[in-house]
Amino acid sequence: MIIDKLIDRIKELKNPTVAGLDPRMDFLPCKIIKDAQDRYGHTAIAVKYAFLAFNKGLIDALCDIVPAVKPQMAFYEQFGPEGVDCYAQTVAYAKEKGMIVIGDIKRSDIASTAEAYSDGHLGRADVFGQEQTFFDTDFITVNPFLGTDSVEPFLGNCKKYDRGLFLLVKTSNAGSGDFQDLLVDGKPLYEIVGNSVAKWGADFVGRHGYSSIGAVVGATHPAVGADLRAKLPQTFFLVPGYGAQGATAADVAVNFDKNGIGAIVNNSRGIIGAYKSGKYDGAAYDEAARQAALAMRDELNSAI
Amino acid sequence: MIIDKLIDRIKELKNPTVAGLDPRMDFLPCKIIKDAQDRYGHTAIAVKYAFLAFNKGLIDALCDIVPAVKPQMAFYEQFGPEGVDCYAQTVAYAKEKGMIVIGDIKRSDIASTAEAYSDGHLGRADVFGQEQTFFDTDFITVNPFLGTDSVEPFLGNCKKYDRGLFLLVKTSNAGSGDFQDLLVDGKPLYEIVGNSVAKWGADFVGRHGYSSIGAVVGATHPAVGADLRAKLPQTFFLVPGYGAQGATAADVAVNFDKNGIGAIVNNSRGIIGAYKSGKYDGAAYDEAARQAALAMRDELNSAI
Repeated sequence: MIIDKLIDRIKELKNPTVAGLDPRMDFLPCKIIKDAQDRYGHTAIAVKYAFLAFNKGLIDALCDIVPAVKPQMAFYEQFGPEGVDCYAQTVAYAKEKGMIVIGDIKRSDIASTAEAYSDGHLGRADVFGQEQTFFDTDFITVNPFLGTDSVEPFLGNCKKYDRGLFLLVKTSNAGSGDFQDLLVDGKPLYEIVGNSVAKWGADFVGRHGYSSIGAVVGATHPAVGADLRAKLPQTFFLVPGYGAQGATAADVAVNFDKNGIGAIVNNSRGIIGAYKSGKYDGAAYDEAARQAALAMRDELNSAI
Repeated sequence: MIIDKLIDRIKELKNPTVAGLDPRMDFLPCKIIKDAQDRYGHTAIAVKYAFLAFNKGLIDALCDIVPAVKPQMAFYEQFGPEGVDCYAQTVAYAKEKGMIVIGDIKRSDIASTAEAYSDGHLGRADVFGQEQTFFDTDFITVNPFLGTDSVEPFLGNCKKYDRGLFLLVKTSNAGSGDFQDLLVDGKPLYEIVGNSVAKWGADFVGRHGYSSIGAVVGATHPAVGADLRAKLPQTFFLVPGYGAQGATAADVAVNFDKNGIGAIVNNSRGIIGAYKSGKYDGAAYDEAARQAALAMRDELNSAI
């Protein structure tokens, strides 16, 4: 089961971190920018070339100390098809290097449309009668607002191809409370969604006691995280919000169980932009990313 | 304002229909399949070639009788970057032919990530300091579950570039009730989300009295549609669920105001797959699509 593979790797590396691969223009080192522009000018192909070079450097620097990467589709998709190709190639490269890949795509739709997203990101698409793989991610994030039947096409491919999901339950932004915190018969909506996630995931529980169908629970709301950890003992958490968004190691510690497992904590800017933080004087971006990831690992381990 | 442009065109053509461009293998005519495979074999490039030929035929057949098209990203994205390129080229071709384009992408994210989606689909992306357009859609659909601050980056580009949104309020699937119908202080969640949509759209109201910030309201729940129409007088509705999903012209009529405006009704399979319905004996797919769109126009006009 894919969730066991993820937890095994977290234990092996003693590191419950996922590095967010969210490339931006202002994170790219001058050398990569210059090289891309010399070759391809001001084009989306130049962006693809630059982002891919940047990501490969990060993956090479992180693959033996960090179990997983989480490319955020938006940062690629905004550059059109070439950007999306960069996303697909980043996924492939990270898997080649032994990393588990969480595609942060937050898709949501219904019926045959949800099936199409599911086939593209977790399964196979039908190319004139031949099944082909396009985005070969291990997990994806999904927005569950459309209800159970919108999630089922994703569950189907998780079963068929041993993949996993992280459903949005309580997001890390300040405005997450606008709808997710509303009380329904005294219960916040995020808890109701969380209970649905546990139900959807009941058939996917692996040997560590966690399901391949997990939840996104923002680190910026530690009281909610602690509450959900207690109420959803089989639901693995993907925890954004650490670092740049303000959550500390103590804040994220509540998402782990008494055995120190049950969650993986995302850090994007704090790792991939570490060389611009002033903390790693003179280090190249990949070396600074590695040092930042090691520091985060130690910080998390002392807090959990 | 983009919403005025849409309403003007609906009035001009006396047709509140949007044709859903959701291409699938089994909708493609043999001739297009053969041509694509002869050129490019079993590849995503062949799919792009076939879908684009199919879509162009549909757009040519519909552009003088239907005001808008709604390509559904999932059906393109499942084929990777080439599929996404087909989506972008479909958008461009429909605009060239004078149609308004609603990109059905149902994206959702927070902060700089939502900005990236917004820049890619409604604005411009930064290519090494040059602003470039990638998906040049007039409207996109957005999932609002993440709250106000997740919608703001989209509103920003709507203001800057005169674009519009359709936020998911009550979707057409049976499971939409799982979360969207939950009662918060006696009010269903969809009504609360609907009120937020009206608030977000208050600065975008055009000369017909409707806002460029609209709502998705499924035709399969006519009582909800009628209720929301009364409660959200400035919110324009994108109404899926007509035809293949079971809603009739009488069901969708409730989404229109007393002047017969206020909504646009989507039909995908019923138009683009019309030649397979047995109703248009011997007609080519594009001609059958045109006949089906004319029949739908007349049906809607007699019900509204």
